[in-house]
Amino acid sequence: MKTLNVDLPNNSYPIFIGQDILNDSSIVAPFVKGRQVMIVTNETVAPLYLDQAKALFKDFSVDVVILPDGEEYKNLEHLNLIYDGLLSNQHNRTTTLVALGGGVVGDMTGFAAASYQRGVDFIQMPTTLLSQVDSSVGGKTGVNHKLGKNMIGAFHQPNCVLIDIDTLSTLPDNELSSGLSEVIKYGLICDLPFFEWLEVNMSDLMSRKSEALIKAIETSCSNKARVVAQDEKEGGIRAILNLGHTFGHAIETEQGYGVWLHGEAVAAGTVMAADLSKKLGWITESDMQRIVSILLSAKLPIESPSNMTPARYKELMAVDKKVLDGKLRLVLLKSVGQAVTTSDFEIDQLDSTLAELTR
Amino acid sequence: MKTLNVDLPNNSYPIFIGQDILNDSSIVAPFVKGRQVMIVTNETVAPLYLDQAKALFKDFSVDVVILPDGEEYKNLEHLNLIYDGLLSNQHNRTTTLVALGGGVVGDMTGFAAASYQRGVDFIQMPTTLLSQVDSSVGGKTGVNHKLGKNMIGAFHQPNCVLIDIDTLSTLPDNELSSGLSEVIKYGLICDLPFFEWLEVNMSDLMSRKSEALIKAIETSCSNKARVVAQDEKEGGIRAILNLGHTFGHAIETEQGYGVWLHGEAVAAGTVMAADLSKKLGWITESDMQRIVSILLSAKLPIESPSNMTPARYKELMAVDKKVLDGKLRLVLLKSVGQAVTTSDFEIDQLDSTLAELTR
Repeated sequence: MKTLNVDLPNNSYPIFIGQDILNDSSIVAPFVKGRQVMIVTNETVAPLYLDQAKALFKDFSVDVVILPDGEEYKNLEHLNLIYDGLLSNQHNRTTTLVALGGGVVGDMTGFAAASYQRGVDFIQMPTTLLSQVDSSVGGKTGVNHKLGKNMIGAFHQPNCVLIDIDTLSTLPDNELSSGLSEVIKYGLICDLPFFEWLEVNMSDLMSRKSEALIKAIETSCSNKARVVAQDEKEGGIRAILNLGHTFGHAIETEQGYGVWLHGEAVAAGTVMAADLSKKLGWITESDMQRIVSILLSAKLPIESPSNMTPARYKELMAVDKKVLDGKLRLVLLKSVGQAVTTSDFEIDQLDSTLAELTR
Repeated sequence: MKTLNVDLPNNSYPIFIGQDILNDSSIVAPFVKGRQVMIVTNETVAPLYLDQAKALFKDFSVDVVILPDGEEYKNLEHLNLIYDGLLSNQHNRTTTLVALGGGVVGDMTGFAAASYQRGVDFIQMPTTLLSQVDSSVGGKTGVNHKLGKNMIGAFHQPNCVLIDIDTLSTLPDNELSSGLSEVIKYGLICDLPFFEWLEVNMSDLMSRKSEALIKAIETSCSNKARVVAQDEKEGGIRAILNLGHTFGHAIETEQGYGVWLHGEAVAAGTVMAADLSKKLGWITESDMQRIVSILLSAKLPIESPSNMTPARYKELMAVDKKVLDGKLRLVLLKSVGQAVTTSDFEIDQLDSTLAELTR
């Protein structure tokens, strides 16, 4: 088992990464402070891993909330199911919530923990590649609003993160690809050697070789932990983690949550961000080809959905959280391995990227 | 105008108290950092003070959300109206929310600010005595759940608090009394001289004499700021601010939100807390009489609602936020002017207080 630490000004917490660690109660039990535990999971994950998770907390009073599976349920209405479960089982402010599932379960459970009785503890047990390398680390929690993704939420750090790669054995292929989209992102934004490693090892990842998966997850989490440690509340550098996300969120919002997987939308968005970076003269046509090629090798989409217009992108992007006083800021690539958050582009250049990459 | 400061470890903010200060934009405008302002108010307050509030922010882009008036609307469903307004007007994370109204508006606006885009700025402009002396100071924000009051929320401190006592001229009599319930609380829990001043000056407060109101608000806020500064997240001493509230919340939940005013429920709850304190030998029968007498002079109820049973109290109190690992803790009086949070009572003693004070 590998252990990484996320070191923040006011607290720090470990990420445990390994195989068969969801069967070892000695790892997570010390992170429960009270005697109550509420496991939150979904209908897909519960039949697979709920019994294992419950066994981890055999010395505690355990209740369970099972949510429907899907991004379309990541809203206030379904968040309320978690509060219902907590209150009807009389959980008090020493309770610990456990998120067992993918990013939707993690984000919702985290926000429930941030807001239940004004804040209780929680533990992340991500079971998808996407949540293992992205949403379970860093403390961003929240739900969607019909007018924008992740618009309601809080920064709330978990007590620990437990990543058992054995849970990836049951992951559908398109969700594996969706997770790889975020893995590739870390290479693009801040880790050229990792990007080069991914170019060589993508087929091992696609065939779920344990050693490759552990290396990819560990490197991704380590990059994320380093960025988050510098900027917990996203005042600056942390925004680079959103490469491709401003375009991608527009896609997700327009298509309806759950129609495009998050990593799929981010992949198409990354191509748009790369195209604009190329127009600015920051990356070359050959860089562009490498980016497209690695996304294709992970079976990710590189084209915008056919029903989206440039005007609709701009409308949806105008409420992005990176907009500051009316000025759209985007994460763009200075080179492969170095991203910046910038409003230093002409609107004409953005328009021409949108025009060329939509149909 | 008086200025008090709330000094917290990570930030501090001023409370401005005076007459006719809702007409002076030089006071609050410096606390708006971006160019967008969202004023949140309700149907009762909007016709009275919204124009004045808008004029304060004439140099900014101002939008407005008007909520229905009442504790029964302090829930996730109506919180969503604030998010709707923010997103449909494309407010970004540099926006500032302004709470113009009573405690419900303040708590909901504060929680919207805590959670919109994971946290934006907000300003409190309380227009009821209750919110001026209590909820607008200290950073507790949130909404109710059908199974418990204030169960969903966050600690989120305002940039400043503006208290214009002229707004009290339009306050209904029962709401003035409700506010006085919290004013009396400060005397009881930590300020004997103030309690004695209130015994002498209650008639001036009931007839809304400006000088008395300013003194009562200033002393209340000052006591609250001092307690909050010691314990922002309510790990300890801050809990004494909840004298009468565990019983009171049970009353509010059982009657349905909005049927009993908050201060009315707290008054009846304070009598119950005082009775248990007397049974423990901490306060005398004569202290008890002073407490009942001052509540009556503020036209507050001293008896439990006729439809509540001891069993129902205990059921509702079991989910109180002060419960720790199954043990009920209550705020009780060591003396008039000194409260403690304690689980140091026999369940028989609580049972007999509940039996004697319910009908």
